[in-house]
Amino acid sequence: MDFRPHGNDKNMLQSKLFTKIERNAPKDEPSLNAQLLTRGGFIYKNSAGIYSFLPLGWRVIKKIEAIVREEMDAIGGQEILMSALHDKHYLQKSGRWNVDVVFKVIAAGDKEPSYNASWTHEEIMAEIASKYVSSYRDLPFAAYQIQTKFRNEPRAKSGILRGREFLMKDLYSFHASEEDLFRYYAEAARAYTKIFDRLGTHAVYTLASGGEFTLSNTHEFQVILPIGEDTIVVCEKCEYAENKEIAKLKEGDPCPKCGGAMHEEKSVEAGNIFPLGTKYSEAFNLQFVSEKGEKQYVVMGSYGIGITRMMGILAEKYHDEKGLIWPEATAPFRVHLLSLAGADAMPVYEKLQKAGVEVLYDDRDLSAGQKFAEADLIGIPWRMVVSPKVGDGKVELKRRNEEKAEVMEVDAAITRVIPLKNGI
Amino acid sequence: MDFRPHGNDKNMLQSKLFTKIERNAPKDEPSLNAQLLTRGGFIYKNSAGIYSFLPLGWRVIKKIEAIVREEMDAIGGQEILMSALHDKHYLQKSGRWNVDVVFKVIAAGDKEPSYNASWTHEEIMAEIASKYVSSYRDLPFAAYQIQTKFRNEPRAKSGILRGREFLMKDLYSFHASEEDLFRYYAEAARAYTKIFDRLGTHAVYTLASGGEFTLSNTHEFQVILPIGEDTIVVCEKCEYAENKEIAKLKEGDPCPKCGGAMHEEKSVEAGNIFPLGTKYSEAFNLQFVSEKGEKQYVVMGSYGIGITRMMGILAEKYHDEKGLIWPEATAPFRVHLLSLAGADAMPVYEKLQKAGVEVLYDDRDLSAGQKFAEADLIGIPWRMVVSPKVGDGKVELKRRNEEKAEVMEVDAAITRVIPLKNGI
Repeated sequence: MDFRPHGNDKNMLQSKLFTKIERNAPKDEPSLNAQLLTRGGFIYKNSAGIYSFLPLGWRVIKKIEAIVREEMDAIGGQEILMSALHDKHYLQKSGRWNVDVVFKVIAAGDKEPSYNASWTHEEIMAEIASKYVSSYRDLPFAAYQIQTKFRNEPRAKSGILRGREFLMKDLYSFHASEEDLFRYYAEAARAYTKIFDRLGTHAVYTLASGGEFTLSNTHEFQVILPIGEDTIVVCEKCEYAENKEIAKLKEGDPCPKCGGAMHEEKSVEAGNIFPLGTKYSEAFNLQFVSEKGEKQYVVMGSYGIGITRMMGILAEKYHDEKGLIWPEATAPFRVHLLSLAGADAMPVYEKLQKAGVEVLYDDRDLSAGQKFAEADLIGIPWRMVVSPKVGDGKVELKRRNEEKAEVMEVDAAITRVIPLKNGI
Repeated sequence: MDFRPHGNDKNMLQSKLFTKIERNAPKDEPSLNAQLLTRGGFIYKNSAGIYSFLPLGWRVIKKIEAIVREEMDAIGGQEILMSALHDKHYLQKSGRWNVDVVFKVIAAGDKEPSYNASWTHEEIMAEIASKYVSSYRDLPFAAYQIQTKFRNEPRAKSGILRGREFLMKDLYSFHASEEDLFRYYAEAARAYTKIFDRLGTHAVYTLASGGEFTLSNTHEFQVILPIGEDTIVVCEKCEYAENKEIAKLKEGDPCPKCGGAMHEEKSVEAGNIFPLGTKYSEAFNLQFVSEKGEKQYVVMGSYGIGITRMMGILAEKYHDEKGLIWPEATAPFRVHLLSLAGADAMPVYEKLQKAGVEVLYDDRDLSAGQKFAEADLIGIPWRMVVSPKVGDGKVELKRRNEEKAEVMEVDAAITRVIPLKNGI
């Protein structure tokens, strides 16, 4: 009895996948993203705002992570993993120990909590940097991690868009001057634009307030979606945008940059960047000796992307009444291979594997209607069907986001689905 | 001002690495593994038993993870990521809510904790499985994750061997019968043996007690080390072994399997496997209908490997008085390229990159003695030196664990260091 789902992690037999499709939307799940992702077997809700990522969902997350990592490496980010349990001295030093969304952690037998669960890492990062930075020669640098964050969101009703526990990429940069920070800030903003485009969705660079994180202006990357939690005012022509919370502009005003018309849009924040200045450097004595021999505080920036939230954004943006429609770069598999009416698609499965194509093979004994409905719900970009009706040596090929299917030779179909570059 | 450390994540200029070497052992750090890893810039201690993983250390962790993933995939493990915040109903159902090492999590304004921080995942996994398993046809399967665990170790003095927060790979398997569980248990044990061998250290398969996790006998994979936290009684001939805590055998007794002599050894547990039976299936109503139409509880197993602990084990096992000596499969880089006396090693760096060799290039303006000492401390397997003394078109090549250096043509040296297979 062998239950290997795949010879390597690129491929999987659906008969071995331990999750199953749900025909109906789950109860007690008001958000569309979590409904779709739960029905497809991507996520499991453990409690309000807290989800586990199942095999299909975890594959999507790993694709998102890989793209984010590549672009962070490209702007000099050095990957690390900081601790998740934070001794209370960290938030006490920066004055954030009593922030409402912070979960505190208490050991058995203790009366008071000694730690908080990581809600952000400016304090930890500043303390680590203070060990290694002493001269201007040690600057600039940037370090990032992909890690779980914990925040006690009072309204955890947006599925994985706003969880109490979520994966985040957070990059921190360290500079000898504000000028150098803003040079890097612009570079990071360009990298962010590229990341969201690669992930399959455009994000609008938006002026925003900084909330807990900073006193000065910050920026968000907003994905325009009907269900948005935020509202932005954005120019239809040049895309200059402000978050409604701080906007001086309103619907119909002329754009201050190009004169175009400003529009209000409901949207979701996919990333944010903050010029932190010296707040955390001062709290953790992060100083350096300048070229002129003067002691100065290091100037910091921080740059976040919600990794699990990104999966929620893609689900909200790319679906129809039948289910999910994954962009190619973040799909759990590239091809969904279906065998119908007892046909054996194993030779096609093996050919796809040899060609390096990620494939989920639905080898189960189910009706065509059921297989098609489940494939539509899961939302893999290409559907390839092997059946007696299609004929020997041929397959039926269809994109998830198109109606038209095409019958063609196996080899021609495989050539068609081989990724060109960047997984697209 | 460009601070990219590398064009891709395989390579790095040491002048851009934000960590530095420490000449002396850190204060308040009694454990050898944490001393060595702290001095080399692999880890940072945030508080007792809590560490962050810095660029060099995180590279080692990712190598360990990749090997573990490959072998888990090979025995059919489906990768997932379960939640880290566990609503209290999970541990209350299994009767583990008041276990001493469990950290509890409390929200602002609440009087009592509502969650615990993940210390293990049997409960979560059993609940998830209960959603998808209904028939014997849904069995067997196995799922795993690599995730942070939190345990309030009262004596957190062993560095990353016994942290309050650590990365663990945990696999869970689900079966229709005890017979099928034990078939898979043996398969997992073979996979574990292979994993530890690939990671660079042999581990002894050892009969052990199950502690909190089970009522029946379990097994540990013990790495024999002088600083071990455990003691095992092991046969010098056939390697039959028992943990001293449950051993009926003692030093000098004849081995019950082969008659060889049993020896006591101090050792460290690198992994463990547990036949859980139906304890968690009963707590979470994880049932299936058998081939005979009878409702039965699913039989579970669990299988752990300490990922960050593994890095500690390797540091304890592979070092000398000068520093760390990484096994090739888990080294942060394969080659440490040093330029001395103003020589330019950039052409060699580029050639190594083209050849697909992971290389850390020490391009800093430091003395030969300082560069050699730092290279020895970091412990990369191959050291390649470019200098006027070595001569044009040549390099000096030396293994970290050998005394002898050899002067040779650049191309010959690169051919020598190219990995053969499995990164070895």
